[in-house]
Amino acid sequence: TRSKLPDVGTTIFTVIGQLSAQHNAINLSQGAPNFSCDPELIAGVHRAMQAGHNQYASMTGLASLKERIASKIAELYGTQYDPASEVLVTASASEGLYSAISGLVHPGDEVIYFEPSFDSYAPIVRLQGATPVAIKLTVPDFAVNWDEVRAAVTSRTRMIIVNTPHNPSGQVFSADDLQQLAAITRDTDIIILSDEVYEHVVFDDVPHHGMATHPGLAERSVIISSFGKTYHVTGWRVGYCVAPAELMDEICKIHQFLMFSADTPMQHAFAEHMADPQTWLSLAAFYQRKRDLLVNLLAESPFRLLPSAGSFFLLADYSHFSDERDSEMVKRLIVDYGVATIPLSAFYTDGTDNKLIRLSFAKDEATLRAGAQALCRVK
Amino acid sequence: TRSKLPDVGTTIFTVIGQLSAQHNAINLSQGAPNFSCDPELIAGVHRAMQAGHNQYASMTGLASLKERIASKIAELYGTQYDPASEVLVTASASEGLYSAISGLVHPGDEVIYFEPSFDSYAPIVRLQGATPVAIKLTVPDFAVNWDEVRAAVTSRTRMIIVNTPHNPSGQVFSADDLQQLAAITRDTDIIILSDEVYEHVVFDDVPHHGMATHPGLAERSVIISSFGKTYHVTGWRVGYCVAPAELMDEICKIHQFLMFSADTPMQHAFAEHMADPQTWLSLAAFYQRKRDLLVNLLAESPFRLLPSAGSFFLLADYSHFSDERDSEMVKRLIVDYGVATIPLSAFYTDGTDNKLIRLSFAKDEATLRAGAQALCRVK
Ligand SMILES: CSCCC(=O)C(=O)O
Ligand SMILES: CSCCC(=O)C(=O)O
Repeated sequence: TRSKLPDVGTTIFTVIGQLSAQHNAINLSQGAPNFSCDPELIAGVHRAMQAGHNQYASMTGLASLKERIASKIAELYGTQYDPASEVLVTASASEGLYSAISGLVHPGDEVIYFEPSFDSYAPIVRLQGATPVAIKLTVPDFAVNWDEVRAAVTSRTRMIIVNTPHNPSGQVFSADDLQQLAAITRDTDIIILSDEVYEHVVFDDVPHHGMATHPGLAERSVIISSFGKTYHVTGWRVGYCVAPAELMDEICKIHQFLMFSADTPMQHAFAEHMADPQTWLSLAAFYQRKRDLLVNLLAESPFRLLPSAGSFFLLADYSHFSDERDSEMVKRLIVDYGVATIPLSAFYTDGTDNKLIRLSFAKDEATLRAGAQALCRVK
Repeated sequence: TRSKLPDVGTTIFTVIGQLSAQHNAINLSQGAPNFSCDPELIAGVHRAMQAGHNQYASMTGLASLKERIASKIAELYGTQYDPASEVLVTASASEGLYSAISGLVHPGDEVIYFEPSFDSYAPIVRLQGATPVAIKLTVPDFAVNWDEVRAAVTSRTRMIIVNTPHNPSGQVFSADDLQQLAAITRDTDIIILSDEVYEHVVFDDVPHHGMATHPGLAERSVIISSFGKTYHVTGWRVGYCVAPAELMDEICKIHQFLMFSADTPMQHAFAEHMADPQTWLSLAAFYQRKRDLLVNLLAESPFRLLPSAGSFFLLADYSHFSDERDSEMVKRLIVDYGVATIPLSAFYTDGTDNKLIRLSFAKDEATLRAGAQALCRVK
C-alpha cells in the first residue's frame, strides 16, 4: 500500500508506553495525570447518563457548555466570542487541531510552526498537500526569534502554529511575543492556530498570554483548548476551539464530517463543573506545587533542570555527564533505573539531539518521589 | 476565506433538528434512539470512572475491547482479525470512515460510492483531492446494478464504498451482491470501505452479508461499525474499524494524529458489556418489532411504505397524492403536523427528488404512535 505518511512510525508515546509497561517503570513520560479527577465531575457524568443524555449532541456542542466557554474567555482574557457561531466543542484538542488545519489549509499553502513541537502538527499539514515550515527553537530558553519568523513568511504562508505554554519546553509567550506576532501578521491573511491546552497552567503569577488577550491577534486566531488537561481526565476526549465566525464555518465543515459531535454525557458534566471558576483558577497553583516538588527532589540528581514557566513539563539536561543520544538515555533510564521519560529529539522532525529529556510532573506525589529517587541514582 | 468545501451547507440533521425543536415536533428524523440504554452499561461507565480509568487509552484502543470485537466477528462471520494489528477502536464510526478514507485515498484517486448515501462520504473523498464517483440507486428497491459498477471502474479507482444495511433505504446486500463485488474487485488493488454500522439490525431472519462473511472481500475490506448504534448510545462516540494489517497501518497514522485515542471509560464499559453475546444478538428482533409497529400504525396513512430489510429506517412515498418537493413536504410535516422526518433528496449530491421521505423507527412506542397518528392525518 502506498502511504500518505511514509515517514510516520509509531508515536513516541506508544513506544515509550510499551517499553515502560514491560519494565514496570515509574511513569514521568506522558502529559496525563495519574491521580483522580474531582469526584463531582464523575458524579456529573453519571447524572447526565441517568438523565438520558446519551444521544448525539448538537454538531457544534451543547449550548450551555459553549456559553460557559465564551464567558470564561471573556472574563479571563477580554475577547468576546459568540457561543452560537464562534465556539466549537471538539472530541479532544487533537480533533480541534486537525479540524482547524484541515478546514483552513489548502494544497500548496505553507504553514510555519516551531520545533520542538507536539508530533501532530507537521503530519496534519502534509496531509493537506501543504508544506510545513519548521523554525527551530534552541537551548537553553527555546525563545522565538521573531526575525526568523518574519523572514520565513512568504506569499504562500497561510498559517502560523503557536503553542503557549509550550510542550515540551515549558516556556510561555510574553506580552512582547504577542506584539511581535501581531506586527508580523498585521495586514496579511495569515491565520494563527494557537494550541493553548495548558492555558491554565502558567506559573509564578505570570498571566497566560494567549491569543484572546490581544485583540489584533484574536481576530485572526483559532484557539484550541482541552478539558482533559484542565480537569485531569485526558481520556474523556473533549476539548474546544474558538475562532471568528468566518474561520469557524470552515472548521465546522470538517468537524461535521469527521466527528459530527463530541461525547454528550461528558459535555453535560463539564458544563455543570464550569459553573465554579475555581475549577480552572486553582490549576496553576496546583501544578506549581508539583513542579516545585520535582525540582526540589532532583536537586541532588546529576541532571541540570531547565526552568519551566508553564505546562506539565520540564526539561532535564545530561550533556555534562553523558554523550549518549537522548533516545538511548531514555531507554537506559527505563531499563536500568525503572523510570520513563520522553527524549526531546522525538519533538523534532530531524531528530535533533540536544541531550535533553522531558519529565512530566502531572503525577501524584508518590510517583514524583519515586521517579526522582530513581533519577538521583543515575550515573 | 477560501473554502475547501464550498458546496457544503449545514447538515440536514442540524437543519431538521432546529426546525423540529422550534415546532416541538415528534422526532422520526435522526437515527438516534430516544429510549434508554441498558442501565448496566451506564453502571459500567460509572465503575470505570471510579476505578480511575480516566486517562488516555492506548492509541488503537483498549486491548480487552479489541479482543471482544475480534471474537465477535470470528464467531458471527468467520473472519479472523488480529486484535493487536487489525482492530482499531475509533471515536465514533464517523471518525473511522474519515480515518479510513484519509489514510487510504490519495490525490487523483477515484472512489466509487452509491447514492442516496450518508452525507459524509463524498465530502471526505473530495478533501483528499480525490474524485467521488456516484452511482445512483433508484426506486423502488435501491438495488445495486453491478454492471454499472463494473463500467465505472477505471485504473484510478482506489476504493468502493458500500453500506449494508443501507442508510437511508433500509436495503441489505445479498450473498449474490457480495459475489458480484468480489468478481469486480478480484485481481485489482481496489479497497472496499464497508459502512456496517447497522450490522446487527437485519430483519426477517436474514443473515447480515457483511464483508467479513466473504473471504475474498474481507482481505481487501475496511469494515466500520458503531457501538452507539448497537447499544442505544449514539452520543458516546465509540466505534470500531477492522482491516488487514497493511491497510490498518495507514488508517492508524491518521487516527493517531486526528484523535490519538477514543474515550477510556466508555471503552471499559463496552468491553464488559460485550461479554454477553445477547447484547447484539437480540438487536434485530428488537428493531423488527419497532419496524412492524410503525408499518402497522401507518396502514391507514396516505403514505405508501417501501419495505425495510434492515437499519433504523424506512422510506415513505407520497408521489400519488402530492407533487411537492420532498424538502417542502418535510417542512410541511413539521410545521403543519408536528412530525419530523428527513427528505431523501438530502442523501443525493444533486438533490434528486423521488417524492420520498425517510422515517426513523429507532424511537420508543409512544413516539412511534404519536408520529404515526400525525402522519395519518396528512392530506
Ligand atoms: C496524546 S499525547 C498528548 C500530549 C501529551 O500528553 C504529551 O505530550 O505527553
Ligand atoms: C450524525 S447522523 C448519523 C446517521 C444518522 O443517525 C442518520 O442518518 O439519521
